[in-house]
Amino acid sequence: MKTVTVALGDRSYPIYIGDCLSTPELLLKAIPHLEVMIVTNTTVAPLYLNKIKQALEGANKSVEAVVLPDGEQHKTLDTINLIFDALLEKPYSRKVALVALGGGVIGDMTGFAAASYQRGVDFIQIPTTLLSQVDSSVGGKTGVNHRLGKNMIGAFKQPLAVFIDPAVLNTLPKKEFAAGFAEIIKHGALHDEKYLSYLEANIDAIFALESNALIDAISKSCEIKASVVTQDETEQGIRATLNFGHTFGHAVETTMGYGTYLHGEAVAIGMVMAAHMSAQLGYITAEDAQRLSQLIKRASLPVESPKGMTAVQYVDAMYRDKKVDSGTLKLILLKRLGEAFVTSDFSKEDLLRTLNHFCH
Amino acid sequence: MKTVTVALGDRSYPIYIGDCLSTPELLLKAIPHLEVMIVTNTTVAPLYLNKIKQALEGANKSVEAVVLPDGEQHKTLDTINLIFDALLEKPYSRKVALVALGGGVIGDMTGFAAASYQRGVDFIQIPTTLLSQVDSSVGGKTGVNHRLGKNMIGAFKQPLAVFIDPAVLNTLPKKEFAAGFAEIIKHGALHDEKYLSYLEANIDAIFALESNALIDAISKSCEIKASVVTQDETEQGIRATLNFGHTFGHAVETTMGYGTYLHGEAVAIGMVMAAHMSAQLGYITAEDAQRLSQLIKRASLPVESPKGMTAVQYVDAMYRDKKVDSGTLKLILLKRLGEAFVTSDFSKEDLLRTLNHFCH
Repeated sequence: MKTVTVALGDRSYPIYIGDCLSTPELLLKAIPHLEVMIVTNTTVAPLYLNKIKQALEGANKSVEAVVLPDGEQHKTLDTINLIFDALLEKPYSRKVALVALGGGVIGDMTGFAAASYQRGVDFIQIPTTLLSQVDSSVGGKTGVNHRLGKNMIGAFKQPLAVFIDPAVLNTLPKKEFAAGFAEIIKHGALHDEKYLSYLEANIDAIFALESNALIDAISKSCEIKASVVTQDETEQGIRATLNFGHTFGHAVETTMGYGTYLHGEAVAIGMVMAAHMSAQLGYITAEDAQRLSQLIKRASLPVESPKGMTAVQYVDAMYRDKKVDSGTLKLILLKRLGEAFVTSDFSKEDLLRTLNHFCH
Repeated sequence: MKTVTVALGDRSYPIYIGDCLSTPELLLKAIPHLEVMIVTNTTVAPLYLNKIKQALEGANKSVEAVVLPDGEQHKTLDTINLIFDALLEKPYSRKVALVALGGGVIGDMTGFAAASYQRGVDFIQIPTTLLSQVDSSVGGKTGVNHRLGKNMIGAFKQPLAVFIDPAVLNTLPKKEFAAGFAEIIKHGALHDEKYLSYLEANIDAIFALESNALIDAISKSCEIKASVVTQDETEQGIRATLNFGHTFGHAVETTMGYGTYLHGEAVAIGMVMAAHMSAQLGYITAEDAQRLSQLIKRASLPVESPKGMTAVQYVDAMYRDKKVDSGTLKLILLKRLGEAFVTSDFSKEDLLRTLNHFCH
């Protein structure tokens, strides 16, 4: 069992990585609450809900569950209302703890519900996808989508604790596992070149779901994200580097329609494009960009722009994002492998040169 | 012009009380943002929207407005979504400032929208009812109702600044003015006996809307609420004393149906009942209770329990509240006039004795 601490003053919390689900005493220690509401979805509930429920009920708690429909299309205020319905039908007081049992969508919605129910109750995360284990479980970004934009409504809400058990990845579809791995590669690319080397050396063990390899990789990724988040909790500056690959990737997602590519797959393409532009502008070598692309390929992730998607479509999507995010278009580029930075110091021609390289 | 500071560290903010709406430079100083979205309702918009808009537009800002339907029944997540629609249709970045122009419903919804839009943007309050000026403008409680409970969904979100111009009270219906005055009386009863004497001496000037009397009373009320809130921002303890009169009052509201009594009217009845129980338990004298009741009566507020409402109905409503709020039924009683305290140190018989006194 490893522990990563997200150090945020009185909002600090531990992330436990190991055989958490077979260690009920650990859950009970972190959840002293007498009333617990587990939030999960129709896919995860049959796999793990009873196990968690029984672990908690053993300690004389009142434990209920609300099972939401599965999928990003349900990440809405309407679905959050189903959590509020369940909480108010009892009704639960401010002393209730919410437990998010599922992937990023469940974690984001449960966190926002916890931030908003009676203006704030405690919550705990048990992420069941690789993506949510290394990404959304760290940093407290919670929320829902709006028909006019993703993650546009939400709160910064830190959990009390996060329990990551790599055993749950046995039931995760391979394609989703690879998409989660894209964020692990991202952490190496933006923060730690040695970690990239480690991933290159251990990718086979990780994809074979070897427990120790998984625990090491997940822990290191959580550490990197935690170190960035503790420097800049509300994303005024350096936290934005965690969006490496995301501006190009988001353009792919919005243009191709959500669901065509998994988020991690779109980020994979975005990282290849951002690395290429970093090389083109002289920050990294073409070999560095190639090395990153190679690792992404080995993870069975896409490295090419979607067929038919044009440079103009990228530009349109990226500038629409810009309006929502801030004044000028900023990109996260690589100063070197292992160090990302936020920049608007490039011309539209620079951007178009990269886009044209990928759009045939 | 008076200024009351709500001292909450890096979330501190000023409340300006005086001819704010005729002092556009004050608004402009507090709102440096280039993009402003005013949130108001169909009742307030025709009266004050253009004035605020013009004051801000004079400084080359982009100013838009979203006009919501008026009334407590619209204080819902669905209505909040209309604010998000307006923000995302442009779309506005995190640098936008929201301005709440209206009563408590507008303030609460705008504050929650500001807390949640892109996980947090700035907001400013321009309360246009006496109730919102002395109550919801101080302390950062924001949110919406759920069909199963009032104010069950929300956030603690402090505004950047509050502008209170008593001139807007000229257009406020008398009944609503009196209901707002109930909260002013409440502040005296729970915190400052001298302030009660002041109100007794100046109630006629206040109800005649004399500017100086209004500025003094509003300032003092904001000061009292601010002093309580700064000691206990998230209501772990003393902030609960601000609910003096509210437990009985809330029972009246839920039993009679929302809208039968204005909130302040129900609180007025609740204060009379809580004062009576305080006297019955020997904390204050019957004369003290009578004195408070007398002032409430002079403000044209009700001092009697609704005809036909039974003690059992009170008990049912109060114990349902209890389940939502915490474990045991707590009441806010008066240790003396000018000092309220939270207590569960009474028997059900004590409570019934008070209820039976008021329920014929």
